[in-house]
Amino acid sequence: MQAVLPDPWLALSVDTMVEALPASMRGSDAGITFAPDGQVDVGPAFQALDAAWTEGIAAMARAGARVIVDDVFLGGAASQQRWQKALAGLEVLWVGVKCDSAVAAGREIARGDRVEGMAVLQADVVHEGVVYDLVVDTTHTESLACARAIAAHVRY
Amino acid sequence: MQAVLPDPWLALSVDTMVEALPASMRGSDAGITFAPDGQVDVGPAFQALDAAWTEGIAAMARAGARVIVDDVFLGGAASQQRWQKALAGLEVLWVGVKCDSAVAAGREIARGDRVEGMAVLQADVVHEGVVYDLVVDTTHTESLACARAIAAHVRY
Amino acid sequence: MQAVLPDPWLALSVDTMVEALPASMRGSDAGITFAPDGQVDVGPAFQALDAAWTEGIAAMARAGARVIVDDVFLGGAASQQRWQKALAGLEVLWVGVKCDSAVAAGREIARGDRVEGMAVLQADVVHEGVVYDLVVDTTHTESLACARAIAAHVRY
Amino acid sequence: MQAVLPDPWLALSVDTMVEALPASMRGSDAGITFAPDGQVDVGPAFQALDAAWTEGIAAMARAGARVIVDDVFLGGAASQQRWQKALAGLEVLWVGVKCDSAVAAGREIARGDRVEGMAVLQADVVHEGVVYDLVVDTTHTESLACARAIAAHVRY
Repeated sequence: MQAVLPDPWLALSVDTMVEALPASMRGSDAGITFAPDGQVDVGPAFQALDAAWTEGIAAMARAGARVIVDDVFLGGAASQQRWQKALAGLEVLWVGVKCDSAVAAGREIARGDRVEGMAVLQADVVHEGVVYDLVVDTTHTESLACARAIAAHVRY
Repeated sequence: MQAVLPDPWLALSVDTMVEALPASMRGSDAGITFAPDGQVDVGPAFQALDAAWTEGIAAMARAGARVIVDDVFLGGAASQQRWQKALAGLEVLWVGVKCDSAVAAGREIARGDRVEGMAVLQADVVHEGVVYDLVVDTTHTESLACARAIAAHVRY
Repeated sequence: MQAVLPDPWLALSVDTMVEALPASMRGSDAGITFAPDGQVDVGPAFQALDAAWTEGIAAMARAGARVIVDDVFLGGAASQQRWQKALAGLEVLWVGVKCDSAVAAGREIARGDRVEGMAVLQADVVHEGVVYDLVVDTTHTESLACARAIAAHVRY
Repeated sequence: MQAVLPDPWLALSVDTMVEALPASMRGSDAGITFAPDGQVDVGPAFQALDAAWTEGIAAMARAGARVIVDDVFLGGAASQQRWQKALAGLEVLWVGVKCDSAVAAGREIARGDRVEGMAVLQADVVHEGVVYDLVVDTTHTESLACARAIAAHVRY
């Protein structure tokens, strides 16, 4: 996305937030846990920091930054509502990035650094009840082509 | 710091922001450039996103997150004033992290992934006119001991 | 490959070797240079260490390790002959990994950490005169499917 | 070391080897396990690949490469003997890198990505019965100063 958009955009993801957490919160019930079957659970300390993180991203956008947020809506519609509330008044393009779950599972294996099972467990649940302006499907479409399709919908 | 503070703190640094930039801004005059002698320069596009980033960090703190910010005040006092303005009304502990410039230069070489010269060029300038609540010196003191000294001044 | 092969295999690549070099050799004429147009050139110091590296990989295989080597044959047939000589007497499956150059160029952009132009410059030249036991094409085939196709040809 | 030695040296470590292993061997009894208390155990599949890796490093040196090997002698004297056998006939400078175990434990915490307890468990055992040409102590001496002390003993 950053390579195809003509203006400079900040790219922030849930991974950025997880890396900003204390190491002790990765693997703790209050923080974020990754079960051997790929199940990801988050506790109250994670949720509190995540809520503040979300407010912070919204503030960056209100301060004039163009921001690409890459998040995984483990809570489906509820996750989207959390963001919608934080981003109130801002111009947002909601993009769903889908992938056939068998293909996603294969890419998870190919990456080599993921808990196997996450891709399948998350493939559908993260889109449940979520409303998008645009959906791209990476199953048979290259990342760059998806990025260009999204960029065509960005107003700037 | 995160390992010694009893509550969970987010740790964000100028490096987090630089990594969030488009690749094309690293090495561009509008973005951020690293000269062969270690001189770091930032242009208007960098400054605009950096200002929004700063506002966002402040908003995370206002939303209740405890945040450790690791920044390099290339502009000395002016850099601090920028943060002071953004953090108005928040409780802040200003900590100066100093190091003998010859020792810092040696660590720069030992890291192996830095432009040599940055450490010496920045060792003094980043502290010029900056007012701290606390100063630690890593020249002869271990990181963890410095972290404990800082933690002792954190009110929580 | 490692995920689909039943036995444990070591995976080593030209990147492993480049990371093992002194930082000063990256960007030096005697070492390895990456031109702004994607052209990669290597000098005599690089070549000497690369030759020793190749002998070392061969010795690992002779000592009983199963080894996956991921190399970029910038010299085409000459690069393969260098490896053939080092691997004399060992059982080797030569696999060409091809990709349509436009698609490869897109993936290069999507990775975000590459000098643009390398993919196009290398797409054909690395296969010139090289003889393979098997060729996979990642243009429209998933990495894991390619890996399985290769694994089906591995004798173990 | 690479920055202070006048000739180009390859730097390879046990970490390079561990990264070359299949992901499935990290955390498997046949491979390498990291217990919550910092205990590291290796199984037969790890040992077989490690032995081949060692032979390969020796072959690189015999082929003319100058090589810095950074290993952790979990088996003390037995680990050194394994290397001595592989390196027979080569010129080797054996360097012990020591550190006060409390200081090493602090650095382990400061790194933030290590299983706590490894440093203390390994601080003494890795030197038991090992014979060095030179010992450096990083407790109070900077890495670069240690590197220079070692470089002064390298014949080239």
